[in-house]
Amino acid sequence: MANHKKRTHRGKPRIRRRQAPGARPGTISIEPGALPTTIRVMAYDQQRVVEKEITSPGELQEFLGKWPVLWVDVVGLGTEEKLRAIAQMFQIHALAIEDIVHAHQRAKVEAYDENLYVVLRIPDPTREQLCEQFSMVLGKNYLVTFQERPGDSFDLVRSGLRHSKEGAARQGVKPDYLAYRLLDAAVDAYFPMVESVSDHLDTLDDPSTADDMHAAFRELHTVRRELLLLRRAIWPLRDMINELRSDLTPFMTDSTRMYLRDCHDHCVQLIDLLESYRDIAGDVRDYFLSTISNRMNEVMKTLTVIATIFLPITFIAGVYGMNFNSEVSILNMPELNWKYGYLFSWGLMVAVTVLLLWYFQWRGWLRGTFRDESADEGPPESG
Amino acid sequence: MANHKKRTHRGKPRIRRRQAPGARPGTISIEPGALPTTIRVMAYDQQRVVEKEITSPGELQEFLGKWPVLWVDVVGLGTEEKLRAIAQMFQIHALAIEDIVHAHQRAKVEAYDENLYVVLRIPDPTREQLCEQFSMVLGKNYLVTFQERPGDSFDLVRSGLRHSKEGAARQGVKPDYLAYRLLDAAVDAYFPMVESVSDHLDTLDDPSTADDMHAAFRELHTVRRELLLLRRAIWPLRDMINELRSDLTPFMTDSTRMYLRDCHDHCVQLIDLLESYRDIAGDVRDYFLSTISNRMNEVMKTLTVIATIFLPITFIAGVYGMNFNSEVSILNMPELNWKYGYLFSWGLMVAVTVLLLWYFQWRGWLRGTFRDESADEGPPESG
Amino acid sequence: MANHKKRTHRGKPRIRRRQAPGARPGTISIEPGALPTTIRVMAYDQQRVVEKEITSPGELQEFLGKWPVLWVDVVGLGTEEKLRAIAQMFQIHALAIEDIVHAHQRAKVEAYDENLYVVLRIPDPTREQLCEQFSMVLGKNYLVTFQERPGDSFDLVRSGLRHSKEGAARQGVKPDYLAYRLLDAAVDAYFPMVESVSDHLDTLDDPSTADDMHAAFRELHTVRRELLLLRRAIWPLRDMINELRSDLTPFMTDSTRMYLRDCHDHCVQLIDLLESYRDIAGDVRDYFLSTISNRMNEVMKTLTVIATIFLPITFIAGVYGMNFNSEVSILNMPELNWKYGYLFSWGLMVAVTVLLLWYFQWRGWLRGTFRDESADEGPPESG
Amino acid sequence: MANHKKRTHRGKPRIRRRQAPGARPGTISIEPGALPTTIRVMAYDQQRVVEKEITSPGELQEFLGKWPVLWVDVVGLGTEEKLRAIAQMFQIHALAIEDIVHAHQRAKVEAYDENLYVVLRIPDPTREQLCEQFSMVLGKNYLVTFQERPGDSFDLVRSGLRHSKEGAARQGVKPDYLAYRLLDAAVDAYFPMVESVSDHLDTLDDPSTADDMHAAFRELHTVRRELLLLRRAIWPLRDMINELRSDLTPFMTDSTRMYLRDCHDHCVQLIDLLESYRDIAGDVRDYFLSTISNRMNEVMKTLTVIATIFLPITFIAGVYGMNFNSEVSILNMPELNWKYGYLFSWGLMVAVTVLLLWYFQWRGWLRGTFRDESADEGPPESG
Amino acid sequence: MANHKKRTHRGKPRIRRRQAPGARPGTISIEPGALPTTIRVMAYDQQRVVEKEITSPGELQEFLGKWPVLWVDVVGLGTEEKLRAIAQMFQIHALAIEDIVHAHQRAKVEAYDENLYVVLRIPDPTREQLCEQFSMVLGKNYLVTFQERPGDSFDLVRSGLRHSKEGAARQGVKPDYLAYRLLDAAVDAYFPMVESVSDHLDTLDDPSTADDMHAAFRELHTVRRELLLLRRAIWPLRDMINELRSDLTPFMTDSTRMYLRDCHDHCVQLIDLLESYRDIAGDVRDYFLSTISNRMNEVMKTLTVIATIFLPITFIAGVYGMNFNSEVSILNMPELNWKYGYLFSWGLMVAVTVLLLWYFQWRGWLRGTFRDESADEGPPESG
Repeated sequence: MANHKKRTHRGKPRIRRRQAPGARPGTISIEPGALPTTIRVMAYDQQRVVEKEITSPGELQEFLGKWPVLWVDVVGLGTEEKLRAIAQMFQIHALAIEDIVHAHQRAKVEAYDENLYVVLRIPDPTREQLCEQFSMVLGKNYLVTFQERPGDSFDLVRSGLRHSKEGAARQGVKPDYLAYRLLDAAVDAYFPMVESVSDHLDTLDDPSTADDMHAAFRELHTVRRELLLLRRAIWPLRDMINELRSDLTPFMTDSTRMYLRDCHDHCVQLIDLLESYRDIAGDVRDYFLSTISNRMNEVMKTLTVIATIFLPITFIAGVYGMNFNSEVSILNMPELNWKYGYLFSWGLMVAVTVLLLWYFQWRGWLRGTFRDESADEGPPESG
Repeated sequence: MANHKKRTHRGKPRIRRRQAPGARPGTISIEPGALPTTIRVMAYDQQRVVEKEITSPGELQEFLGKWPVLWVDVVGLGTEEKLRAIAQMFQIHALAIEDIVHAHQRAKVEAYDENLYVVLRIPDPTREQLCEQFSMVLGKNYLVTFQERPGDSFDLVRSGLRHSKEGAARQGVKPDYLAYRLLDAAVDAYFPMVESVSDHLDTLDDPSTADDMHAAFRELHTVRRELLLLRRAIWPLRDMINELRSDLTPFMTDSTRMYLRDCHDHCVQLIDLLESYRDIAGDVRDYFLSTISNRMNEVMKTLTVIATIFLPITFIAGVYGMNFNSEVSILNMPELNWKYGYLFSWGLMVAVTVLLLWYFQWRGWLRGTFRDESADEGPPESG
Repeated sequence: MANHKKRTHRGKPRIRRRQAPGARPGTISIEPGALPTTIRVMAYDQQRVVEKEITSPGELQEFLGKWPVLWVDVVGLGTEEKLRAIAQMFQIHALAIEDIVHAHQRAKVEAYDENLYVVLRIPDPTREQLCEQFSMVLGKNYLVTFQERPGDSFDLVRSGLRHSKEGAARQGVKPDYLAYRLLDAAVDAYFPMVESVSDHLDTLDDPSTADDMHAAFRELHTVRRELLLLRRAIWPLRDMINELRSDLTPFMTDSTRMYLRDCHDHCVQLIDLLESYRDIAGDVRDYFLSTISNRMNEVMKTLTVIATIFLPITFIAGVYGMNFNSEVSILNMPELNWKYGYLFSWGLMVAVTVLLLWYFQWRGWLRGTFRDESADEGPPESG
Repeated sequence: MANHKKRTHRGKPRIRRRQAPGARPGTISIEPGALPTTIRVMAYDQQRVVEKEITSPGELQEFLGKWPVLWVDVVGLGTEEKLRAIAQMFQIHALAIEDIVHAHQRAKVEAYDENLYVVLRIPDPTREQLCEQFSMVLGKNYLVTFQERPGDSFDLVRSGLRHSKEGAARQGVKPDYLAYRLLDAAVDAYFPMVESVSDHLDTLDDPSTADDMHAAFRELHTVRRELLLLRRAIWPLRDMINELRSDLTPFMTDSTRMYLRDCHDHCVQLIDLLESYRDIAGDVRDYFLSTISNRMNEVMKTLTVIATIFLPITFIAGVYGMNFNSEVSILNMPELNWKYGYLFSWGLMVAVTVLLLWYFQWRGWLRGTFRDESADEGPPESG
Repeated sequence: MANHKKRTHRGKPRIRRRQAPGARPGTISIEPGALPTTIRVMAYDQQRVVEKEITSPGELQEFLGKWPVLWVDVVGLGTEEKLRAIAQMFQIHALAIEDIVHAHQRAKVEAYDENLYVVLRIPDPTREQLCEQFSMVLGKNYLVTFQERPGDSFDLVRSGLRHSKEGAARQGVKPDYLAYRLLDAAVDAYFPMVESVSDHLDTLDDPSTADDMHAAFRELHTVRRELLLLRRAIWPLRDMINELRSDLTPFMTDSTRMYLRDCHDHCVQLIDLLESYRDIAGDVRDYFLSTISNRMNEVMKTLTVIATIFLPITFIAGVYGMNFNSEVSILNMPELNWKYGYLFSWGLMVAVTVLLLWYFQWRGWLRGTFRDESADEGPPESG
């Protein structure tokens, strides 16, 4: 459970302050805490793959237009001049570049004359947040991607491009196929994340954690928040992919559209799982609440049984502890002077106890009360 | 109830790890625990039916194209080379074969140039899981089906093909009619399953189980999970059948489409039932919660009645157990020396008791308290 | 309330086992418990009405095609050969006849070449079940109706046909108008049923039943189930009527379609009422739960007030019941030898009591506690 | 709050028994309790306005067709022959007249060849019921309106017609504009009604009523019912107005359609408000439930604190009240003969009390317990 | 939290009384409390910007038609004659001007022949209410805006117009671009407001406030109301912008429509956030309720443990406090005269205590009871 705890602060939908209301649309305003921008380039055709880490956007000029596919991989949204230079070089629209640096967008597609702007949330590999923003600008012969933090789920795509020339060559001389591959990798990266939330949810159903209901409820609260955030990330993703599939811009080829159908299916599957877990989380909550009520019931029954037995017999003892003067009158507490008075009082007390126990038995209150509660909490299999 | 318990671990929506995010689409990666693949062939025309268990996919060549309907029945998704050979022979698309081996798909139809790919979840006859995945690849003169585990609900279809030639002949010389028959059998196989969940739900409404609320709640929790899983399997099924009906591929003939309407109706009926049971399960939960509250109420009333009677009279007994020295002053506990002091104290205690009982009677707290609780729990008919 | 109880077992959505999964579509399999089939015929034109109870389907030949409207009224679905003969005579499609004998269909319309198949659920006049299935096969000059049990809501339609020739004549020489009349009668027959559920719900809001919360909750549980079943019957009815109105088959004339709009409106009204009662039932449940909580609160307050007063003063009495030897030391319980010791102890106890009562008054716990609870339960008017 | 109470019995969705199922459609069957029918006529053109109370429908002949706008205002649905005469005179369709007298319709529009039938629910000005039914039959040069009870929200419309000829003249020479004016007045009349429910809801949030939770809950129950009824009246109203706007019958002119857009907006605003109040009512319920729980918690804490302090010290007092014979053995209750025995016992009891108080302080149970509860109930502002 | 409290009275959906039902449509009726009207004018073309505070609407004549863009900024809806003069000058439709002065409209667009009427709710900068109404009338070369109170979020727009001529010049010579800028500023102004509600919600999840559950619940109640009001303001906003984008009136140019897409996205983001916070508020409520239940459980367990230990041993002490006369018979309380009688009694009491503690340990009731509760309340990280 340790690893769940350290993720908890991630469960908060973020809004950081946008630029001031009324500001000119299309202004680039770097967010506080954004990492400095680094740029990596990967260019390939049927035969060759070239990779380069570049420091000044000007170096991109030597690639642009010279390769069938140019992938500019921008990481960190903190260096304004670099972003501005890239935006200018690839003719990225002012509104698109504004969205790229404000890292709180819903997944969406926007078609401009020069290129296609796609933004989505991908699982954050650093696990600092649940998700980070990933933007793609898809042009005729280039793909520019922007992400907030280094580290991603795209290493397999990169190594695929590097090593298996023929694989990349099949449809890979088009940047839209590369965009699909990244999208597919991003969607698939959600599966382990959903799985981990699901495992977390399963531990809550387990008897060993159940004995501290309060902590269990707190955990459940966390799980529900994470499910909520994942839903918020994945629902618009589905609509976005749908739009990509039906979109008629020249930047997306028909063969890639067919692959997007597969990607769409995975999205629907994720949503399906999330909805199921949401329902299950609701059920677990009901189960917890009923468990709390049942325990309270047990506690109260125990108290009632004990109090109801001992109050009457303590009363009897109290009566024979009274100090009425039997010398004044034979009527004053004659029992005290009976030969079997003490035995009589015990008999009375035992009789009352037996009667009450029989009553409780009849009402069924003794059944649950003297049973091992921890066994009671077990899963149905062991019960 | 025993048979319900052993099914409980089935109630978990599964996600097994897909291939790594970013992997090439269309790769076949065998799932851990998949059974070795066995292949059975059934080929028939108007006059004859041939059946054969084959060990190497190469043997399929002697059937392919020679019969109007060839049914290749693949069971077990564990032998990669066999699956690969079949995929190649029947020109199954890379994305389709990927979905076939990843046994966690939602029901869907995908039309390819060479054939129609249909995937759905069918009730698992081995009862190990609630459902298993069933894939069909429907071509012009063949139907290839894939399932995870041996044993299915299709025996009646097979025997129908074998014995009643004329029945099979009516429309059976087309593989799409065979596909419909399998689909219909799969949908119908859900009815006994839903019925069993419904019976389970009914036992929970029964008085005999009601005396252990906690266990009953646990059972209800299980039923709700099973309903959830069944919904997850059947909802997409309906959409899939709808798509099949409206689809315009050449692999589905008009006469079969009319039969699919019937199949669609059964699906809608199943969904209808599941939604009803979901609502009923919600009602049963409310009923349980109110029962718990009512019982707590009864327990508390009993405690209150007993404590409220015995605390005052024990106090009275306590007073006359004080040791004030009546020799010092006539004011000190004169009652102790009264002739009828003891009787007076009893009178006092009886009066207090009667007064309190009258008060409880007036508040209506005695009504429910001394009644047989088990009768109280009975169903409305016996109440 | 007695008449509600005996209806309770009706509140269960039924699924009886269909034929085995994989069976040939269109097979007639009689359900266990189906009543033997009886057939009544009513044939009329502008001038004449002929009625006949027939024993063999062969007798239908003398009517078929000879009258503008022939109504074949089949009651009981238990005699296979009769049903088969009728199906053949009126060219009823195999899938339609399968649905007719499996009495668990949702309301639907199916258009075949020879006739129109309509199935719906109607209130069961025998009150054994909430609803029974009613099927109509509407042809060019005949209407065949099938129902499970004798007795129905169509007597007024029949007498209308018999006696007021001119009324029947107005549009009644077409079987589609007859079908509309039966449909309308079926829909209208739901109104008293919904009204009875509504009355049942109203009694639960009544103070006189409220004093047994558990029974009231059980009743509410029953009402909710009945509402659920009625919804399940009526929602698809609306869609079915809608489809009938917009359908373009030759079996439904335009003038009848206009009357169907009225029928549709009644359906919408029924649904509206059912949804309202559902909401009200939810509110009543909340109200009950809050009442239970409030009562628990009252009980607990009473206990707390009594215990909190008597525990301290019993303690005081206990102190002066201690046997410290005052002869050993003047420090040992000097109060016992005070002249006003006993009075002092009483003063102490009275002071504690007054103090505590004042505290409870300040906290407002005495307000509700000593009030008549049954008045408290009354409806707002009397409160 | 007094005026809310007397309205409570209005909160019930009514169904009165319709005519028997199976009856001929279009039959007029007067409802029990319907008031006798009175008829008022208002006819106007650009210059003149004529008003007349008429006793026999025959008198309408002198107006019909002679004025550009004839408004026949029928109040009370109890005199069958009058209604029948009017229906005949204005060619009202049999189904429309049936709906007019069955005063339980949802708002709807029905276009017939001769006229347009509009029915809706309007606030009942007599406040006997929440709503009453209002029907309009709009023809080329007449408008016939039907309502259940005298008194309505149309006086302003009437006086506008009478006095400001020019106002009426602007578009008023068409009956459809008059129909719009009545519709608009009816919709606007819902605003004060919704406002009164909203005020009622606000008083429940108030601290002064909060001290009787049970009554408050009962009030809330009433408010929720009223909101439910208002929703039932207003939702179909919106759809009806929408249909009127888009309808293509000749009885509604384009200029009036534009005004209907305004009327539609008011309807949407009403629905918006009702939905908000519904949500708020749900929140208030949650708030109440939590308040009840919190109070129970306080009560239980008080009981626990008191009992936990006094049970142990009463036990100590009980110990030193035992009568072991110290003369038999020095081991028997030596404390009784100690010089400081009594003080020692007090010390013990004080020590136990202090220890327990410290424990309760540490657990935070004393914080809420000895605070003024009524201040606790105040609204956030005063807290 | 102080600043939240003073905002609380804002959380009420307002309906002020509209004009009387039945009044002529299009009448201007000033609302009580409306501020006196002030008018500011801003007119600009490519080169110049002119600003003027005007006192009489007549002064507008010198601007009208002489500038490509004329912005008339009307603040305060209290001076009827000024509003009437403006309405006449800009040909504002009677229904539009009625809506402008009734400050309770949902966001909507209405196209008239002469201009486009847009109304929406904007955050109230004075914070007196959550929102105020903002209306725009967009013509070919003018934009008239109306708001209730002075002070708004448009200062940045104004200064942009004044200082950066070139910025304003880009598309700013059209009034529709100005209208977009105001709309965008209004939408963006909701972000800090939503953020503040979100912060409020976060403080409720904090352990330090959790120790007064009742206050926390009250705060939550307030947050939910504010979320509700914000939803009510923002949902129709989205539809309105959508309508603006798709609208075909000549007053909105294509280039501006593209910017509106951005504005629409922000709206969707706001709605997304609001829905998330709603879900979270629901979760927090569940968490609170479970916390209350858990605490009650703890309290009850403590009471039960203490009572169950002390009741039996007090009974034992009571028994040996009885006064049976051991001189009468050797059977009467022989223990009192045993040598080790007192020790025996203590042994008995200690044994009972140990036994009960062992029982409670076995049932797990001691685990939670003697732990620090405030630590228990902490967030998962610190737990």
